[in-house]
Amino acid sequence: MERVKPHILPGFMELTPSRQALMEKIMETIRQVYALYGFTPLDTPVIEASDVLLAKGGGETEKQIYRFSKGDSDLSLRFDLTVPLARYVAMNYASLTFPFRRYQIGKVYRGERPQRGRFREFYQADIDVIGDGSLDIMNEAEIPSIIYQVFTRLGLTRFVIRVNNRKLLTGFYDMLGLADKSADIMRTVDKLEKIGPDKVRDILCGDLAVPEDSARQILDFMSIRGSNDSVLAALAGYAGRNPTFDLGVRELGTVVTYLKDFGVPEDHFAVDLTIARGLDYYTGTVYETQLTDYPEVGSVCSGGRYDDLAGFYTDKKLPGVGISIGLTRLFFILDDRCLLSDRLVTAPADVLILPMTEDTAPAVRLATLLRESGIRTQIYTEPKKFKAKMTYAGRLGVPFAAILGEDEIAAGAVSVKDMTTGVQETVAVPDAPARILAALSASGGIRPVKG
Amino acid sequence: MERVKPHILPGFMELTPSRQALMEKIMETIRQVYALYGFTPLDTPVIEASDVLLAKGGGETEKQIYRFSKGDSDLSLRFDLTVPLARYVAMNYASLTFPFRRYQIGKVYRGERPQRGRFREFYQADIDVIGDGSLDIMNEAEIPSIIYQVFTRLGLTRFVIRVNNRKLLTGFYDMLGLADKSADIMRTVDKLEKIGPDKVRDILCGDLAVPEDSARQILDFMSIRGSNDSVLAALAGYAGRNPTFDLGVRELGTVVTYLKDFGVPEDHFAVDLTIARGLDYYTGTVYETQLTDYPEVGSVCSGGRYDDLAGFYTDKKLPGVGISIGLTRLFFILDDRCLLSDRLVTAPADVLILPMTEDTAPAVRLATLLRESGIRTQIYTEPKKFKAKMTYAGRLGVPFAAILGEDEIAAGAVSVKDMTTGVQETVAVPDAPARILAALSASGGIRPVKG
Repeated sequence: MERVKPHILPGFMELTPSRQALMEKIMETIRQVYALYGFTPLDTPVIEASDVLLAKGGGETEKQIYRFSKGDSDLSLRFDLTVPLARYVAMNYASLTFPFRRYQIGKVYRGERPQRGRFREFYQADIDVIGDGSLDIMNEAEIPSIIYQVFTRLGLTRFVIRVNNRKLLTGFYDMLGLADKSADIMRTVDKLEKIGPDKVRDILCGDLAVPEDSARQILDFMSIRGSNDSVLAALAGYAGRNPTFDLGVRELGTVVTYLKDFGVPEDHFAVDLTIARGLDYYTGTVYETQLTDYPEVGSVCSGGRYDDLAGFYTDKKLPGVGISIGLTRLFFILDDRCLLSDRLVTAPADVLILPMTEDTAPAVRLATLLRESGIRTQIYTEPKKFKAKMTYAGRLGVPFAAILGEDEIAAGAVSVKDMTTGVQETVAVPDAPARILAALSASGGIRPVKG
Repeated sequence: MERVKPHILPGFMELTPSRQALMEKIMETIRQVYALYGFTPLDTPVIEASDVLLAKGGGETEKQIYRFSKGDSDLSLRFDLTVPLARYVAMNYASLTFPFRRYQIGKVYRGERPQRGRFREFYQADIDVIGDGSLDIMNEAEIPSIIYQVFTRLGLTRFVIRVNNRKLLTGFYDMLGLADKSADIMRTVDKLEKIGPDKVRDILCGDLAVPEDSARQILDFMSIRGSNDSVLAALAGYAGRNPTFDLGVRELGTVVTYLKDFGVPEDHFAVDLTIARGLDYYTGTVYETQLTDYPEVGSVCSGGRYDDLAGFYTDKKLPGVGISIGLTRLFFILDDRCLLSDRLVTAPADVLILPMTEDTAPAVRLATLLRESGIRTQIYTEPKKFKAKMTYAGRLGVPFAAILGEDEIAAGAVSVKDMTTGVQETVAVPDAPARILAALSASGGIRPVKG
């Protein structure tokens, strides 16, 4: 038979079983937090009609899009979850209840140049709240608490949610008479951390022809730092000169005010005036999330408030606020830097039953009994030697092996071996589920599957 | 602004929020059952290199495949989860632990002619156990219990798992001197239920040139019916004439023997000699699952034993057994026939908090408190009238509304309204989580999200 060498495409992530089990735990954690905040799951097609998906124009991503024909249809793979959301909300406007809160975790596709830690197929995990005509600032205030819960439950302790407000920035540049250049200026200032103030000044005064005095004022403004209260106090010094700026400061103040009530510790949150988010799309609060010890990886969860979700599909005004986690990249970063919690259990089963007799009926009955108690159970099925069976148990990483030899069967018992401690004890079969559940529960992190 | 009419492609399923919530419950149920049996999750790319994906040749599905170029790569979307599994196991052979038990739930693509209930993008939910060189019959015996658990936990009571064995069929046709025609005969006999015995006889004696006496013997054999034991007894009458047949009968006997110990009630299981599964691929036990009251929808969960998973990629002998649920189609069928359990809760939140004062800090604190107890909580954020807020609660279908007016806040209390009964009671804020959890638990079906 002629054989084809099996391989996957560059830029596509595929994990080993134990890594995949970790990835599933992360996805489940994110799903649970999103559900806890009352978001409803949505699932849109991966393939969309090109004219619909690219209605807005793909911008820089257009050439990265996987676009092809099938029959006489012009098709494209989704490159994010926001455009499909806009399409969905516009299409189903009449039947949806607003504010509409949805989460979606799904794969998206971008034909980027492959490089380490960058993927062409990757998961995004998004939430958005969409209003009908208007949407209260409370929604913007709630987002940091969702980010905080996600990363805390993933076992991370050193991260900061950085927040700014686009109205505040727009108003500030308007104050300086630079409204028409504000988008370009924001994109430049966004690089402050990467390239430093001198280079930012060079670009501002050079390419963007910003007057030197204004460039100085911009850099002064961007150097405002300190506790949230002190930054807000410094911003108060600019009050009364521009209504958009003043509104932005009030909105930022509201977001900060609610932090404590939403359960976000202040050390995980920072007002940061340099954050702008590249897209023109954003109009209010913007968010980035940084891993304190790994600033080089950039933001691992970003988003913001926008005023016009679906203008390319509908004349309805649909403002919203949302965040997106680039899950595949996040997994890569956490795994690469050994930040994945060891408490997340990756064994495919809690118990491996090792039948030592030819008649495996007692093993099957024990498996059924354990599964009825929600214990993830596998029977070792192959007729191999004891040593091979134990090796298998060790390689799977199961916490318990349940050994059923002639003696155990005769006594209506089973020998349960704790694979971590090596301790083995014989218990009556009817007592086995409770004993194993108790041991699993005591060892932490392992939860039985609910019936 | 020029607008594009938002639409999705024909043959692609996209659900409303309440339907999607049901779909998620179904996927979660399947995932939990698969995990309970010690299968490990796997996630392979949706896009594969065409030469790898089509190494075996797509057969009838080849023209249905979504195949396209990007740069100079020839790419295809996966059309099932079996070929990617074969590729994965061949590629990672050295690092996997055998028997390797994996489950995968993912979207696959086939450009079929769109028709009601047929989809071009659909979920498959597969499990497979792969052995290294050999794989014990026990694995085939365990599969019906997994199918039984899945469908029972989905709330279905009237379904039958139909089982046959390909060795038995191959051996039987060999007995009749029809070994070279056995694949064609099986495909014809597979249609028995649809077209009836007379038409089957016509095809056998006509197109396939089977002697009339043999055709009669085939139809006699296929008419063996009754309890599992009586069918096995009838099969014993053919014993001793063909070793492959005898082995097949022994294997079938083993599968039947273990049913009870695996917890499968006999009325959900039937030996059915007419089942063959079209693919040449299968070599042992084969499975189909029929909804008793809806025979017209065909099998909703099928699979079987095979001896050569990955011959196109590796010279390793990799036998296995697996089943696949066409999840999107199953959802369509269950929903269409109103078979989805009402006990599955679809509201996006357990509690909607309605703040009645301008200061929403008490509402935020209450939300944080409830979420800390794992109660899915949403705050109504918009400054609307009370009636509009209650209408929203009704439309979301939340079981409880928590009303926070000035009186409640002054008293450190909250008015909790049971949206089902209409009963409203005022409780102290610190008591609210326990009260709501108890009420949710009593109403059944709603489970708090674990912290």
